[in-house]
Amino acid sequence: MSKNIVLLILLNQCTYMNLKIIALIFCLFYGGQAWSQSEEDKKIIRQIYDEALEKGQAYEDLRELCKNIGARLSGSKELEQAVIWGANTLQALEPDSVYKQGVMVPHWVRSKKETGYFYSTLGRVNFDLSALGGSVSTGTNNFISGKVVEVQNLADLAQMDTNDIKGKFVFFNRSFNEKLINTFHAYGGCVDQRWGGANEAAKYGAIGVFVRSMTNSQDHFAHTGVLHYDNMDTAIPAAAISTESANILSAQVKNDTTLMAYMKLGCYTKDDKESHNVIAEIKGTKYPDKYITIGAHLDSWDVGEGAHDDGAGIAQTIEVLRIFKALDIRPRYSIRFVLFTNEENGARGAARYAELADRNNEKHVAAIESDCGGFSPRGFNLDASAEAMSKIKSWRAVLEPYGLHYFEKGHAGVDIGPLKKYNPEIILVGLHPDSQRYFDYHHADSDVFETVNRRELELGAASMASLLYLLDKNIVN
Amino acid sequence: MSKNIVLLILLNQCTYMNLKIIALIFCLFYGGQAWSQSEEDKKIIRQIYDEALEKGQAYEDLRELCKNIGARLSGSKELEQAVIWGANTLQALEPDSVYKQGVMVPHWVRSKKETGYFYSTLGRVNFDLSALGGSVSTGTNNFISGKVVEVQNLADLAQMDTNDIKGKFVFFNRSFNEKLINTFHAYGGCVDQRWGGANEAAKYGAIGVFVRSMTNSQDHFAHTGVLHYDNMDTAIPAAAISTESANILSAQVKNDTTLMAYMKLGCYTKDDKESHNVIAEIKGTKYPDKYITIGAHLDSWDVGEGAHDDGAGIAQTIEVLRIFKALDIRPRYSIRFVLFTNEENGARGAARYAELADRNNEKHVAAIESDCGGFSPRGFNLDASAEAMSKIKSWRAVLEPYGLHYFEKGHAGVDIGPLKKYNPEIILVGLHPDSQRYFDYHHADSDVFETVNRRELELGAASMASLLYLLDKNIVN
Repeated sequence: MSKNIVLLILLNQCTYMNLKIIALIFCLFYGGQAWSQSEEDKKIIRQIYDEALEKGQAYEDLRELCKNIGARLSGSKELEQAVIWGANTLQALEPDSVYKQGVMVPHWVRSKKETGYFYSTLGRVNFDLSALGGSVSTGTNNFISGKVVEVQNLADLAQMDTNDIKGKFVFFNRSFNEKLINTFHAYGGCVDQRWGGANEAAKYGAIGVFVRSMTNSQDHFAHTGVLHYDNMDTAIPAAAISTESANILSAQVKNDTTLMAYMKLGCYTKDDKESHNVIAEIKGTKYPDKYITIGAHLDSWDVGEGAHDDGAGIAQTIEVLRIFKALDIRPRYSIRFVLFTNEENGARGAARYAELADRNNEKHVAAIESDCGGFSPRGFNLDASAEAMSKIKSWRAVLEPYGLHYFEKGHAGVDIGPLKKYNPEIILVGLHPDSQRYFDYHHADSDVFETVNRRELELGAASMASLLYLLDKNIVN
Repeated sequence: MSKNIVLLILLNQCTYMNLKIIALIFCLFYGGQAWSQSEEDKKIIRQIYDEALEKGQAYEDLRELCKNIGARLSGSKELEQAVIWGANTLQALEPDSVYKQGVMVPHWVRSKKETGYFYSTLGRVNFDLSALGGSVSTGTNNFISGKVVEVQNLADLAQMDTNDIKGKFVFFNRSFNEKLINTFHAYGGCVDQRWGGANEAAKYGAIGVFVRSMTNSQDHFAHTGVLHYDNMDTAIPAAAISTESANILSAQVKNDTTLMAYMKLGCYTKDDKESHNVIAEIKGTKYPDKYITIGAHLDSWDVGEGAHDDGAGIAQTIEVLRIFKALDIRPRYSIRFVLFTNEENGARGAARYAELADRNNEKHVAAIESDCGGFSPRGFNLDASAEAMSKIKSWRAVLEPYGLHYFEKGHAGVDIGPLKKYNPEIILVGLHPDSQRYFDYHHADSDVFETVNRRELELGAASMASLLYLLDKNIVN
């Protein structure tokens, strides 16, 4: 039965109800959105999208970042080139100020000669392989070798004896759960083996770890990402292998007890190095001492070009500033456009930013982040009070014409997260793009500019700018 | 104000209302969806998505069609290879029957030697060029040449004198309106110059037509597509040029009155040739003599691989049959899985299918089509009565977890459209995927298998299967 039909029946039966109640019912059904969204909002949001789609610069900014600088891991000279590029690009848009925040970041370096393979009845099969970020090496120019024990997860490992593992490689081969519509949920269900696999396997005397790449795609790209060691003295090397490599290794491990694997990783960790958050600011007209931050991370892994992760978010953050300036939107709160450093292996830029904001009494009322790729936006992940969630959801009517339907409680972002430590009431928002293609490219050589669609990127920037506009206009601090 | 808060106020004021009314209000807020969607539906739809995402064959079917057969224009041997492939692939899934419907289709052939360029102060600049489908040639191995008059649309042309045009090329250069969120609307706003440009320009004595490619992308791909001539005796040749070619031509036409363009097209139209619709059928358990058709088109243009247009729809249609068989869903209505022929330049397969259905008293109650690319599904375009629209929209709650939010009146599809002629009450549904990337590939060499994402394709198939399930279960004929 349709809601309208039920409403008619209801009203028919309610002739003795007073007019106020009837009016309330009507407002609930037909008027709620009209109350919460003015025609002015609709007009401004239309202008924001027009500006992004007709005069957008995000795509060309992303091209510059990817093609002129490329991969930019913490500690690299490329990241500091990106810092300069980011500061200059923001400055050219003439915000009220642009400045940098220094912060010491980890400096891990990958050898170009990393390699791995196995010998079995198939002969020698080379792995598509990528050392995990932070991994120790296999020793100077050395291969390590051993048999391979395949497990699906850390719980499998915990069931095993040291005798099963000692002197061998552990191969974590859990696949993404393809049933999950949101691929980030599949990632969340697997990433513990990348983050903690080597740390746990070392406790059983393993010599090294292979991890199935964190991706939905069946291909030859190895997807790196960060790991951690509780104890560096017992740390063992670890590498991601492509899903194709994982499939063939898994098949051969089951069939061939003589199988021997070989790994050579030359990576190492140097002393921490200084990097920088890059910040542009527009002073608020009404609450200049209170802040809304919008941002993304400037660093990437040392593979591909960091296009979706997170060049897209960087280009969108810069584009939001450009749109606000082009449309002469003068926010009530001070707005910070932040290019965070070191998200991938430390998140020290984010910690530093939140810490300094607190130290300087810069109360943050909201923050928006883009770190889920430059794909068609579908809505927002919200980390906020029930009241704020409800308020934001009431804007749905004005945002739905732009394909924004998703407004759900969820992980808003790594870089804005630390702000909550200093203000539990802060509204955190993550742009939620379509997730289907993200892990095809994530942390791999395939994450290049050519995989980003111009309009999808621009729509994401416009979506962020629209939400920033609405938050700034509506938040009661 | 949130709905829940208003509801509490309302209930507080309504203590004198009888329980029935209170119950009705609760149902409106919390129970409406439970009324219209059973737990059974939720379970089946979850199974459909699981089947598509975990055991999907659509991607491999599409790979076969694109890589083993490739482009398949009406009249080509490749299209008839695709007919055989389609029939065999459907047959392997063991529906109740598989058969073909013969139909005569146009047979237009492109020369490999088509080319074009202009001379200006820049020297010689070659066009990225593709003859429009159905275009006449420039004469055997001949170039034609002339000055170029740029117009933005047919209305511009209508303002001009024959003297302005006679002996010259007309260059239709209207761009997509980038402001439009749905790129099909931008296409709809431009395609008249491709379809009718040559026909109109001939009336003014033009010697040929260049048309800016129908795409959002700035690149070097020429995008073909069909044109029409009212009068073949005065027909002039016409070709699409890439957006990059259009940009440089436009700039030079304005700056250089001596600019001369050259075009050589060797295309020609042969006698009509027999092609086939391919049909698989599952007999209905309750209404075996009434039908729901689900389909896509097997033909493509003679460029690229016809991956998004419409190999994706073909692979999805076959996948819906596979899913229904795998889950043992036994529909009430007879279901026809139809691979239509000749959508691109005639739609004669569609006309033939509808005509035969009418002649055989096969009443069609609904039809579903996929012809907007293999991208992430976002909902459905509906062509149906207000009552049916309302019914379908009531299923939104059960479909939203799969990212299906869009349920709007719109163009459902070229191939199912003719069924409406014989039953104005038919419910027509078009799968509505995200449209941002579609025209990057449409009718161009870039429309290849590699541009289709496996999960996006599979989600589309599951969305079609889910809607077919719901229509079959709920339609009252």
